[in-house]
Amino acid sequence: MTEPFDAVDIIMAKRDGATLTPDQIDWVIDAYTRGVVAEEQMSALLMAVFWRGLERPELNRWTDAMIASGERLSFADLPRPTADKHSTGGVGDKITLPLGPLVATFGVAVPQLSGRGLGHTGGTLDKLEAIPGWRAELSNAEMRAQLASVGAVVCQAGSGLAPADRKLYALRDVTGTVASIPLIASSIMSKKIAEGTAALVLDVKCGTGAFMTDLGRARELAQTMVEIGADHGVTTVALVTDMSTPLGLTAGNALEVREALEVLAGGGPADVVGLTLALAREMVVAAAAVVAARGVPGDGIAPGSPEADRLAGRLREADLAAALKDGRAMDTWRAMIAAQGGDPAAPLPWARHTDEVVCPADGYLTRLDALQVGVAAWRLGAGRSRRTDAVQAGAGVQLHAKPGDQVRAGQPLMTLHTDTPDAFARARAALEGAWSIGAAPPAITPVTLDRLGAPAQLLA
Amino acid sequence: MTEPFDAVDIIMAKRDGATLTPDQIDWVIDAYTRGVVAEEQMSALLMAVFWRGLERPELNRWTDAMIASGERLSFADLPRPTADKHSTGGVGDKITLPLGPLVATFGVAVPQLSGRGLGHTGGTLDKLEAIPGWRAELSNAEMRAQLASVGAVVCQAGSGLAPADRKLYALRDVTGTVASIPLIASSIMSKKIAEGTAALVLDVKCGTGAFMTDLGRARELAQTMVEIGADHGVTTVALVTDMSTPLGLTAGNALEVREALEVLAGGGPADVVGLTLALAREMVVAAAAVVAARGVPGDGIAPGSPEADRLAGRLREADLAAALKDGRAMDTWRAMIAAQGGDPAAPLPWARHTDEVVCPADGYLTRLDALQVGVAAWRLGAGRSRRTDAVQAGAGVQLHAKPGDQVRAGQPLMTLHTDTPDAFARARAALEGAWSIGAAPPAITPVTLDRLGAPAQLLA
Repeated sequence: MTEPFDAVDIIMAKRDGATLTPDQIDWVIDAYTRGVVAEEQMSALLMAVFWRGLERPELNRWTDAMIASGERLSFADLPRPTADKHSTGGVGDKITLPLGPLVATFGVAVPQLSGRGLGHTGGTLDKLEAIPGWRAELSNAEMRAQLASVGAVVCQAGSGLAPADRKLYALRDVTGTVASIPLIASSIMSKKIAEGTAALVLDVKCGTGAFMTDLGRARELAQTMVEIGADHGVTTVALVTDMSTPLGLTAGNALEVREALEVLAGGGPADVVGLTLALAREMVVAAAAVVAARGVPGDGIAPGSPEADRLAGRLREADLAAALKDGRAMDTWRAMIAAQGGDPAAPLPWARHTDEVVCPADGYLTRLDALQVGVAAWRLGAGRSRRTDAVQAGAGVQLHAKPGDQVRAGQPLMTLHTDTPDAFARARAALEGAWSIGAAPPAITPVTLDRLGAPAQLLA
Repeated sequence: MTEPFDAVDIIMAKRDGATLTPDQIDWVIDAYTRGVVAEEQMSALLMAVFWRGLERPELNRWTDAMIASGERLSFADLPRPTADKHSTGGVGDKITLPLGPLVATFGVAVPQLSGRGLGHTGGTLDKLEAIPGWRAELSNAEMRAQLASVGAVVCQAGSGLAPADRKLYALRDVTGTVASIPLIASSIMSKKIAEGTAALVLDVKCGTGAFMTDLGRARELAQTMVEIGADHGVTTVALVTDMSTPLGLTAGNALEVREALEVLAGGGPADVVGLTLALAREMVVAAAAVVAARGVPGDGIAPGSPEADRLAGRLREADLAAALKDGRAMDTWRAMIAAQGGDPAAPLPWARHTDEVVCPADGYLTRLDALQVGVAAWRLGAGRSRRTDAVQAGAGVQLHAKPGDQVRAGQPLMTLHTDTPDAFARARAALEGAWSIGAAPPAITPVTLDRLGAPAQLLA
């Protein structure tokens, strides 16, 4: 036994509110990954962290230790700046689909390492797997080649990135220690920093359909992640966005791909288009800030050089909305899908059975609960309960009205889609009380509730 | 899966400060004992309990659930009332040895289920095993027969009593969740209640050599255990006693048996005699209170009957100190040792090597640290580091002065005993700075610092 620390001492220190030393943090994460610190010891430490929190230097070191548990990618040799987006997950959140191609259209490399869904929020990989032939697994070399050629990639995060996080996440899931801001922030940021992106835009969801239902807590999570990013040299911005009602008009895999295609074709629901443009603008500006500050090593463009200024200026001034209207973003989408084996022209699957939910009264839809719609889509087959479950490509909920819309008694309010029609009753039960109809239109809150992070000054 | 609860929900409820329901508590303890609740889940729950505490009804139910995990003994058919003593553990604490025979001499049955030592505090079974032939393992039938004949028994607690506690204790030990008052209190009280004693006197140690170093915390633990006892129909009293300096003049197994024999012969150090008499009086009075309130079922003596009053009166008025002086307690001791295979007349073992610690100056011994003496005795071989280690019967520390005593430069302050002389250097290192010598005698604090619990009114 040559271990320099005893796990019990570290647990008791955090339990009693002490600040852990860098050496203690490095050791406990490494020893847990090696299996020297037992699961029951780490779970006690996680509950102590849940209780006592981690100070900023502790949290940075904790994140560092998680990064150090695995490989670390670098895109410093790419001839483009990199920017990624991470969403904390919501209902109908298909933004990654139009966003990656749109941002790549402006000369930014977008390496989106994504996951599959669990519970009521869908996963980006599940959505893209509705496209015939598309595959989520890429080698690092394939990902890099696609970033250099197409500029955008959405693929499965390799198991080599922050393996300590995978082990910790599984443990937190069964020990009631998920909802801790430092643990959430380090989990997300360790993977994003290990992935090697130079700029990162976070979409922190807030509302019934999100992990965070309280705006104060969502802001605190966003601020914590922005600080970790800044302290690790990643230009990081966070938008806190509303998730009290579903995003767009669809929740379900192929249904959401169709809606993303509408956006890439210049149409689509206003909230999806608005959030796509807001996040794209942040990514492009953050990438421009990176170019201005650091240059682009792959092209040998030095910071402050005329080439760097020109590239940053081009990135900043680009008209994002026009790229959705004129087909440039759609071209990048097609190239991105094709590069991963997908057929962008192939018809998307439909579920075999549909059922309509009918509006009971005239008036305005004043409320439509994100969580309940998410649970209905999940029960219809769009999501999974265990990591090993399969999802149905065609299943989900299609909305025919959103809060603020005028509705009439007897009109369809939503269409439920599934391959397994016995799920309709369970989906309807989930939707019980999910909406309200009133005589007057409701006050509509903006999608973006707050913005945190650095490179805003470039917007001036 | 027909489990009525999910462990994660229970963890999160306690984490968020909720009161657990009786059904949740029953299930989580039972499911943990069955292995359905995983170690890492229970450790997270234990840390949440450490943080949030357990309210009195929760703690009673938690204790009930631990009792229900195993068998429950009953001495209701014995023709004597039962009283037991539990000490939270200290250095030189050999009180059980004279106490059990003394109290049994007054018609009380004393079923002392004891344990072995770990770390710097010795275990009662380790001490008695220094007596040639004595055995700690008795069947329930043997224990019952000895209680009916001799009246006193000290034996190993069977594995059938509160098995959930054994599993929980091992988990707390490696997860930094030992020092929680509700968890300590339920651990001790579940075993004592399952053991079936009608009256219980607790000796809660406080000071450097004890688990509790703070008087407020020691009082809180004592009060919590008194409440659990009262709520479970066990007449419970607690003394909070000083453990800043060792009890008596010996720490080590055979050394402590010798000191106990001095007490049983009417001599012995004043602090050991004083605490033995104080605890004996509480046990006898508590047993008398039980007789007065409930009668003695085994003899068919009804509560309030003249026989019950007479028995209670005899118990109360007995002269405890006289029974040490006149040999009655020693007779009971001999019968108790012989009943368990021991030879009360056999010579006790001595360690093969001794070494003297010499007083460096003239003056008064003003301080002698209990923890450091305990660690020295442990390193000399009197204690164990792992449950499977053997102990040396003869090893330990013999004190030649106690705080308040006048000392002279060059006199022996203590004698170290061991079979393994390479331990002397480590024992001396443990004793570095363990004592102070001053020009004036120190203020001596009484051994008993506080008293909590019910049947004091009978003392009037």
